[in-house]
Amino acid sequence: MMGQVICIGLGPGDPDLMSLRAHRLLAGARTVAYFRKAGRPGQARRMVDGLIPEGAQEWPMEYPVTTEIPLDDPAYNATLAAFYDDWAARLAAGAARGDVVVLCEGDPFFYGSFMHLHSRLPRDLVQVVPGIPGMAGCWTATGLPITWGDDVLTVLPATLPRAELTRRIADTDALVVMKIGRNLPRLRAALADAGRLADAWLVEHGTMPAQRVRKLADVDDAVPYFSIAIVHGRGRRP
Amino acid sequence: MMGQVICIGLGPGDPDLMSLRAHRLLAGARTVAYFRKAGRPGQARRMVDGLIPEGAQEWPMEYPVTTEIPLDDPAYNATLAAFYDDWAARLAAGAARGDVVVLCEGDPFFYGSFMHLHSRLPRDLVQVVPGIPGMAGCWTATGLPITWGDDVLTVLPATLPRAELTRRIADTDALVVMKIGRNLPRLRAALADAGRLADAWLVEHGTMPAQRVRKLADVDDAVPYFSIAIVHGRGRRP
Repeated sequence: MMGQVICIGLGPGDPDLMSLRAHRLLAGARTVAYFRKAGRPGQARRMVDGLIPEGAQEWPMEYPVTTEIPLDDPAYNATLAAFYDDWAARLAAGAARGDVVVLCEGDPFFYGSFMHLHSRLPRDLVQVVPGIPGMAGCWTATGLPITWGDDVLTVLPATLPRAELTRRIADTDALVVMKIGRNLPRLRAALADAGRLADAWLVEHGTMPAQRVRKLADVDDAVPYFSIAIVHGRGRRP
Repeated sequence: MMGQVICIGLGPGDPDLMSLRAHRLLAGARTVAYFRKAGRPGQARRMVDGLIPEGAQEWPMEYPVTTEIPLDDPAYNATLAAFYDDWAARLAAGAARGDVVVLCEGDPFFYGSFMHLHSRLPRDLVQVVPGIPGMAGCWTATGLPITWGDDVLTVLPATLPRAELTRRIADTDALVVMKIGRNLPRLRAALADAGRLADAWLVEHGTMPAQRVRKLADVDDAVPYFSIAIVHGRGRRP
């Protein structure tokens, strides 16, 4: 029996926000794979606690590096590439025996790690089920619409240089910033430089029990890498 | 009994991509409201065919104008404002007798019409359930990731002037363009001016039976307003 590698987007955090299709695929899974840091339970795996069928095989795909090697060191890329090559081969071998369900937080094709496996697998072996992106969970958590009418929305990674962040923040109506964590001080400076600091919100653990929504200007503690900053658009309103 | 106005995001089109929560709320609904053009079934309503419980009341909210009055005519805003005022009052009155479920395609806070009701209702009377945005259904339909690594994503309405479209298209890694329809020729010109026409895809009816995915340069027929154009990012790839 020949199966597929099926990556399911789990949505922003609350398992109740998973799609009907993702939930059904999970409930019928025989093999479930997910990324995690070595020695950690893994956020995607935690989201499906109690939802993986009894007897299903679990394949934790443990990142070989996270911050031990700097991003711009060629060894970083080489180590990660070998890791993705290896898991792409294992998933393909697994799919030869039946479907393998791969878990992905948010939406798989939106800054997801799965794409590094996807690009290594034959197209007809892979299926992707979209999910609610984390940012949609976060703007919903603020209780205000992100875009109205003809608003432009810009999504930035907080890893960009300060001048680049400032220029782009000053040039958009609505804003989402991902990958915050230790980049928060630089992001805060860029928001201030662009005159948008007072309009910015920071959402941690959006849609999850630990959800926390604050004005970004008030945040002076460490925040998770997966926090999301939001500036709402103010477009046309009849 | 006091209820709430609960707006549920239905996702990009395929009802199977609705969230578990949206599906449960719909299955238990006594009153279901949705926007539509006068005399048309309405896309949101069509998405839930067969899912509204027997005996539930349906409240079609029919737009008083679409293109009969130009957008920049003050009468357009005044007419729409009165329409939203009226429905906000009716939904609030309905909620005094029990929950009213409002249908919304995609994600309610992402260019949705519901926000015009939301801004007129008391905050504690309203609940919003996020959905998979149409754009996520569309980039999944192309079979390729939209953003990698440190890619910047820009979301533009095709209603912007050509020079503005060109400038922003030339200045982003990944691109999503909404609200296409009759704006397609201007968008195509802007993509060409920005040197990105060959990289652009057009997705019609994403995730629905009529789904169609084409290189935008090949499209020379009329396309729906809710078509979405996509240019994929090419960021860091180990």
